[in-house]
Amino acid sequence: MNTDLQDYSHKRFNILTGEWVLVSPHRAKRPWQGQNETISNEERPKHDPNCYLCSGNTRINGEENPNYKDVFVFTNDFAALQSNSRSFTLNKGLLKAESETGICKVICFSPDHSKSLADMHKKDIVKVVKIWQKEYKLLGEDKMINHVQIFENKGSVMGCSNPHPHGQIWSQSTLPNEVKKKNNQQEAYYSKNKSSLLGDYLNQELETKERIIFENDDFVVLIPFWAVWPFEAMIAPKKHYKDITQISDSESLAYAEAISVLTKAYDALFECSFPYSSGIHQAPTNEEENIHWHWHMSFYPPLLRSATVKKFMVGYEMFGSPQRDITAEQAATRLRDLLALSK
Amino acid sequence: MNTDLQDYSHKRFNILTGEWVLVSPHRAKRPWQGQNETISNEERPKHDPNCYLCSGNTRINGEENPNYKDVFVFTNDFAALQSNSRSFTLNKGLLKAESETGICKVICFSPDHSKSLADMHKKDIVKVVKIWQKEYKLLGEDKMINHVQIFENKGSVMGCSNPHPHGQIWSQSTLPNEVKKKNNQQEAYYSKNKSSLLGDYLNQELETKERIIFENDDFVVLIPFWAVWPFEAMIAPKKHYKDITQISDSESLAYAEAISVLTKAYDALFECSFPYSSGIHQAPTNEEENIHWHWHMSFYPPLLRSATVKKFMVGYEMFGSPQRDITAEQAATRLRDLLALSK
Ligand SMILES: O=P(O)(O)O[C@H]1O[C@H](CO)[C@@H](O)[C@H](O)[C@H]1O
Ligand SMILES: O=P(O)(O)O[C@H]1O[C@H](CO)[C@@H](O)[C@H](O)[C@H]1O
Repeated sequence: MNTDLQDYSHKRFNILTGEWVLVSPHRAKRPWQGQNETISNEERPKHDPNCYLCSGNTRINGEENPNYKDVFVFTNDFAALQSNSRSFTLNKGLLKAESETGICKVICFSPDHSKSLADMHKKDIVKVVKIWQKEYKLLGEDKMINHVQIFENKGSVMGCSNPHPHGQIWSQSTLPNEVKKKNNQQEAYYSKNKSSLLGDYLNQELETKERIIFENDDFVVLIPFWAVWPFEAMIAPKKHYKDITQISDSESLAYAEAISVLTKAYDALFECSFPYSSGIHQAPTNEEENIHWHWHMSFYPPLLRSATVKKFMVGYEMFGSPQRDITAEQAATRLRDLLALSK
Repeated sequence: MNTDLQDYSHKRFNILTGEWVLVSPHRAKRPWQGQNETISNEERPKHDPNCYLCSGNTRINGEENPNYKDVFVFTNDFAALQSNSRSFTLNKGLLKAESETGICKVICFSPDHSKSLADMHKKDIVKVVKIWQKEYKLLGEDKMINHVQIFENKGSVMGCSNPHPHGQIWSQSTLPNEVKKKNNQQEAYYSKNKSSLLGDYLNQELETKERIIFENDDFVVLIPFWAVWPFEAMIAPKKHYKDITQISDSESLAYAEAISVLTKAYDALFECSFPYSSGIHQAPTNEEENIHWHWHMSFYPPLLRSATVKKFMVGYEMFGSPQRDITAEQAATRLRDLLALSK
């Protein structure tokens, strides 16, 4: 292990986005006198009559949820993207805008209001994976849709307004900023090396194991070398697949296991229902071949030191570059140690 | 005014960064059931014996603050960048890192613990401006420093751990991500048009006045067409200056007036001490000519609907693109109306 990386301020390069993160390992000892988050550890009922996501309940727009037993998908009642948007472009001097159309959906992971992915059985997580695959395919077949963003905001600190286990999909006609960056980086590498950028990186990580948290036959869970959030992690298939529809049933189970292991480790870390935003980056659903894409799921959790002290991405981070105090290696060690304990 | 922009989901292009923001004007009516921020409206004393920034008090590292009367600058006790960092580069397969050196400082805007920029007299804000100029020059003259980031995190919701009015400077050897983007966009425009990208944009805005909040002889305060945060605003000099040292004494006063007007309008908007991160983007202090740079100060405030409901930049925003509900034009109108009221 390179000890300079643990001792001195430095920056690390994100091969997928082409951007840098500032790392300040010496700063982890800084005392915290700022805002504390409130974490609710109250047990939730299995069914909450006031929850608009529970089965059988009525949503704000008057629609009634079915009595669903597994996973339930519906179109977002307050979608940020409209499918019937008027098509227009504005190009007036230095003002440039374009209409953007899309479809936004909500996915309830389970009828059980009290659960999160971390509490669900592998076989129930597989049902969520199957719906992600189905929706990616279905939405992608729509001529209007060229990109499908699957994500979850978990915890009120991540803007989640309902603790019922659920995620979202925002699909749209053009590629969002972050996807464009990853598209460019992967394309440049693939056209030069005829192999997957992320695949080659995973192989390198699997040799040293410094940042690996967990692996099974098909998936790796690791803290990427360039992670931004204190306990940011990535789940990626070992094989070079461009999107989640390419994984087999047994691989789907291995993927569900990876999600389960990581989310359980997160909950154990600060003994709380660990907040995060997670998202799946995969090939756009446009007409391109997109062979350079290697899909992966990332978790961006805000907590830094405890259930109530988070990392703030503010002034310097907004105007300069993201910044972190504990290193990726330290974060990987802590999460790996938790896994060993729970065995 | 283009009404499509007020009615339909669309994306707008940021000419300074080359990135897009997703705008969903139809979504502003979404009910909010999520986390509420706690806002402290308690009056603070002019001097707090427990504040490590108040004059005469002792800091955590044992150092004693002088009995300062105006503005007070010191080197950050928990600096994220080290000036004596070992120099190293790591280039091992797909792992890429570089040591980064720098100097971090803290600037107390006033000895009065109870104040913020919004409560300070123009003539006292000018003293802060003078220090920003002095530090930009001083740090920039250091051979090790090629970029000087001046910023303020205001409010506990923005990670500020001490309500004493203060800002920071993180200066470093290389250009951060956001600065690189703005450098590239301004350079490309300048080499093509031989004029300032931001200057030309300001002239266009001054014609329609749709997004202008305030102007005096030397400065414009506006909501940029591509603003991301609900009430994001920019203060920019009308003349093409590359950094803050180029403005005259009378222009410094005009700049202080612009800061005062904007921060007062912010406080009036939701009747609270308005949180934000602000930052000054200006020419790097490297050996280049940097004539393409047009310096400006941006404010990124998180509040969306009230003193307690903020905009969350989470799932979609982290994995896709930033997204906003109210439009730049609506935000500009609200802030402008507040100014008219206070006259
Ligand atoms: O330096 P401070 O005020 O202790 O810290 C604050 O600003 C820094 C720079 O934006 C951030 O890295 C920290 O997360 C934030 O809490
Ligand atoms: O769609 P929701 O859950 O109401 O809203 C949440 O996720 C969205 C997508 O990341 C964000 O734009 C919102 O700020 C956040 O509160």
